[in-house]
Amino acid sequence: MPRLRLGLAQCNPVVGDLDGNVTRVLSIAAEARRLGCDLVAFPELVLTGYPPEDLLLRPAFVADAAAALDRVATASSDTVLIVGAVLDSGTSTDPSAFSEQTATSARSGLHNAAAVCADGRVVGTYAKRRLPNYSVFDEQRYFVAGTGDPSLFAIGGVRVGISVCEDLWSADGPVDGLARGGADLVVNINASPFNVGKHRDRVGVLAERARSAGVPIVYVNQVGGQDELVFDGDSMVVGADGEVLARAAQFVEGLTIVDLEIGRTDTPTALPLVDVRSAAFDHDDAADAVVVPDLSEEAEVWHALVTGTRDFVRKNGFTDVVIGLSGGVDSALVAAIAVDALGAQHVHGVLMPSRYSSDHSISDAVELATGLGIEHRTVPIEPAHAAVMGMLEPSFSGRAIGLAEENLQSRIRAVILMGLSNAFGWLLLNTGNKSESSVGYSTLYGDSAGGYAVIKDVSKLLVYRLCRWRNDTAGRPVIPVNVLDKPPSAELRPDQRDDQSLPPYEELDPILALYVEGDRSPAEIIAAGHDASVVARIVGLVDLAEYKRRQAPPGPRITEKGFGKDRRLPIVNRYRSGS
Amino acid sequence: MPRLRLGLAQCNPVVGDLDGNVTRVLSIAAEARRLGCDLVAFPELVLTGYPPEDLLLRPAFVADAAAALDRVATASSDTVLIVGAVLDSGTSTDPSAFSEQTATSARSGLHNAAAVCADGRVVGTYAKRRLPNYSVFDEQRYFVAGTGDPSLFAIGGVRVGISVCEDLWSADGPVDGLARGGADLVVNINASPFNVGKHRDRVGVLAERARSAGVPIVYVNQVGGQDELVFDGDSMVVGADGEVLARAAQFVEGLTIVDLEIGRTDTPTALPLVDVRSAAFDHDDAADAVVVPDLSEEAEVWHALVTGTRDFVRKNGFTDVVIGLSGGVDSALVAAIAVDALGAQHVHGVLMPSRYSSDHSISDAVELATGLGIEHRTVPIEPAHAAVMGMLEPSFSGRAIGLAEENLQSRIRAVILMGLSNAFGWLLLNTGNKSESSVGYSTLYGDSAGGYAVIKDVSKLLVYRLCRWRNDTAGRPVIPVNVLDKPPSAELRPDQRDDQSLPPYEELDPILALYVEGDRSPAEIIAAGHDASVVARIVGLVDLAEYKRRQAPPGPRITEKGFGKDRRLPIVNRYRSGS
Repeated sequence: MPRLRLGLAQCNPVVGDLDGNVTRVLSIAAEARRLGCDLVAFPELVLTGYPPEDLLLRPAFVADAAAALDRVATASSDTVLIVGAVLDSGTSTDPSAFSEQTATSARSGLHNAAAVCADGRVVGTYAKRRLPNYSVFDEQRYFVAGTGDPSLFAIGGVRVGISVCEDLWSADGPVDGLARGGADLVVNINASPFNVGKHRDRVGVLAERARSAGVPIVYVNQVGGQDELVFDGDSMVVGADGEVLARAAQFVEGLTIVDLEIGRTDTPTALPLVDVRSAAFDHDDAADAVVVPDLSEEAEVWHALVTGTRDFVRKNGFTDVVIGLSGGVDSALVAAIAVDALGAQHVHGVLMPSRYSSDHSISDAVELATGLGIEHRTVPIEPAHAAVMGMLEPSFSGRAIGLAEENLQSRIRAVILMGLSNAFGWLLLNTGNKSESSVGYSTLYGDSAGGYAVIKDVSKLLVYRLCRWRNDTAGRPVIPVNVLDKPPSAELRPDQRDDQSLPPYEELDPILALYVEGDRSPAEIIAAGHDASVVARIVGLVDLAEYKRRQAPPGPRITEKGFGKDRRLPIVNRYRSGS
Repeated sequence: MPRLRLGLAQCNPVVGDLDGNVTRVLSIAAEARRLGCDLVAFPELVLTGYPPEDLLLRPAFVADAAAALDRVATASSDTVLIVGAVLDSGTSTDPSAFSEQTATSARSGLHNAAAVCADGRVVGTYAKRRLPNYSVFDEQRYFVAGTGDPSLFAIGGVRVGISVCEDLWSADGPVDGLARGGADLVVNINASPFNVGKHRDRVGVLAERARSAGVPIVYVNQVGGQDELVFDGDSMVVGADGEVLARAAQFVEGLTIVDLEIGRTDTPTALPLVDVRSAAFDHDDAADAVVVPDLSEEAEVWHALVTGTRDFVRKNGFTDVVIGLSGGVDSALVAAIAVDALGAQHVHGVLMPSRYSSDHSISDAVELATGLGIEHRTVPIEPAHAAVMGMLEPSFSGRAIGLAEENLQSRIRAVILMGLSNAFGWLLLNTGNKSESSVGYSTLYGDSAGGYAVIKDVSKLLVYRLCRWRNDTAGRPVIPVNVLDKPPSAELRPDQRDDQSLPPYEELDPILALYVEGDRSPAEIIAAGHDASVVARIVGLVDLAEYKRRQAPPGPRITEKGFGKDRRLPIVNRYRSGS
């Protein structure tokens, strides 16, 4: 059986950074050549970054992306590169001929493709067949699907078929067809975002597809954060029997080398065959295949949040962040994540006690900041609180303005935090969790403010689990014990507690999971055992808060449905869920 | 030639308001029956409202929408109704079988359809063939296209073919096929959003399609605002020769009656034919066909902004709005639009002078408010300004904090406005224009705040044109002359003027139109005659401000590319446009 040395380039491209991405690819290609790889596979759209979104509607960007591929191809050696790239399909049409809009920008005639580069040129291409247009994906906005017979590529006696991401997930998709057509090995390149449970799904579908096709599959995925998406890598090689033969560490950049013995059929190929190189490279030693063990759910989420935060901050050109520290669990968690992402010296905490703050909120925040080793300052908000109340007094006179006063404290804190952000160039990290955001338990332009919302897709119960996991991992209370033990409160009025306004999180979070992530109806949620009046109230709050979420900062998506591109609901919406 | 009495139901549905929309449709149907209509056509998806977005992923919503159609059909009489509705295509598949995500919500097996209702039942349906998935449209996220031979419907001796919106816009789309298959008349139902120039495009494509198909076309579109979209109606009947025979007033709800003599072919139909009713109703008199004349561009935009504002406010359950009045042209325009949309008694102005405000900014704002007849109050921001500066002094000590101080004034104003909004239930109208939003000339959580951004898609030059148009129309200075004559300034530091930070709007706006709406590259914009260094600077500012726009309020879209669903750019984006 021929043996190929494969390189899985689990790298972290930056959207739009064509020069930087070319440099990344060529640097890894050179390393792979040095290590004697026959073939190295890069992620989907690695040259543009994923997803490039409406940059793809700009003719100049598409031309620059084509030039980037030319540079990679020209520099390619006898180590074969499979590189995700945008290709012109040759089917672009006059936009005015078929659009309800007379679109001024280019209409898509592009393929989401893989280019096979070797010996200084592009020796062949493959265009993605299945274009996802659901959840966070809008690929039919940009691309046309590949059609016709895909080519196979003969490399060192092995016939290699190529597929892109979604192509893998369908039993009647192109992977089985590649194998039937004569492929001995299928390479699948991905930009597949993380969510909790995704690894299990991937292993399941890879095993099923490999067994069904009867060939090994090489799965390569990118790492890193891009706006709301976090990519975890999780690159793998699965044998024809469905067994995972190698797996790269999640969330870590790197080139994984796998020596793979590949059974080959001697049947004639039914597909076009491109001869790339006749012999595989010789090696004295075999690379050790490593199968990295699974992470716990908490560990996986922690790494996702750290990765998302680090990349959003740094890819946007920031070094430092500022966080309002309330003494509560949400801001404690965000501060701990920020320290892991950026280093303690780049994280700045601000305590902003009010006339309603408890003593422990200050002492807990100080203990947290001290334990994390971050710079922190205290800015009591009383002067502005009193000033604004005085300014509004003529308007408010005689009225009960409870909620308005609560909100203005929160907004004054945002004024302080944004003042520091503007003055020192620190990105403001938002500390709101998904449970709060779901029911609108936040103040617009107050605690909803920020450049990046680290835990916006993390339910309150998971917030606690993550804190406890971090403390267990550290072997010391990174998050002070008192922060975890006291009842949650926004402290915007005397003796306020979350459970005065909301059901306990143990009751709230499962309802939210069913309604928000599961798209279940109130009737179904009640049938699942939840109290009817609580369900009606919570569903009403979720629907009403859409306008707040529309103005929320981006943050890392860790579930199958975050409040972002994967949940597109109208603000004007009178549907009341049959409740 | 048979003559049909046609009803064009240019109505204003509310997204998600299934009960309300059924009531609307049945009320218009009853009126049409009373007026002797043979056929009345309603807009696309009139029962759910358009676009229902991810409500369509909820099985309960789809079931409730089906029940809504049943109610309309059951109540239908011998006046035939063509009603836009969601239909099950029967092709829904197990989501886990074909998605990169294990989506928990229903995967779309829906048609965007027209249901033909008569005599108490659905006598036939048509499923949209062309599903737009560009610009603001995401229809391939939700729908599968209709296939196979569409039915024709025989009504009063006329064979009626049906199409939905986008179906009309393609020369090789279904309209010509309907005519070749034997249709004497094609009805096209729409949810076609307004933008400047859209009427001209519609008339052009309708004339071309009618002439090509050789049959008259009935074009029915909805009116009203839905989040960022504004629908202008513009319902029309076009003869087989391409002439506009009738046209409803834009932006006005109403049932337009048209008596149309229809030439019929005696050739056998090549398509399935559903016999609905053999004879047309008799009438003693013919309805007068009215062709409403075109509006000027300023009038069209004014009505679009008024419609968008009125519907966003009212459909969300608000009655009143609050506006910060700076004495400048943007807030003056927004106040005048709000008064036209809601009535002066529902509009509240707030003057918030600072230590840097000029005398004229106060007197101009008072003159505006008085002229509009709106309640207004003055809340000087000095107490909070001084308080916050004092609170930040220990952090700022010794630093130049010019921009941070400018921003905090803007944010203090937002605190005041939102305090009033929260206390009195007034929706805050944002007053930022598209030129400012493009280059990020605004303060996040300051003047960028609001529930609805009335002029977010209006360039600064168009702001001035609209003000002058309004004054000319009124025959008096609704917008005080001094507001229009003085140089624009944010008044956040002494003697500040916009043109200290930005090129004159006469130079800026055309560059923005090419870059933002036209997706032109800097090289192309320079080639069009603009200064290279100015272009490079402006393009850089536009790219950098993406994070601010992502947190901006919704507002009515009046161009072919607003800052909303039609321009989806990443925040993390290192592409620098070859500049």
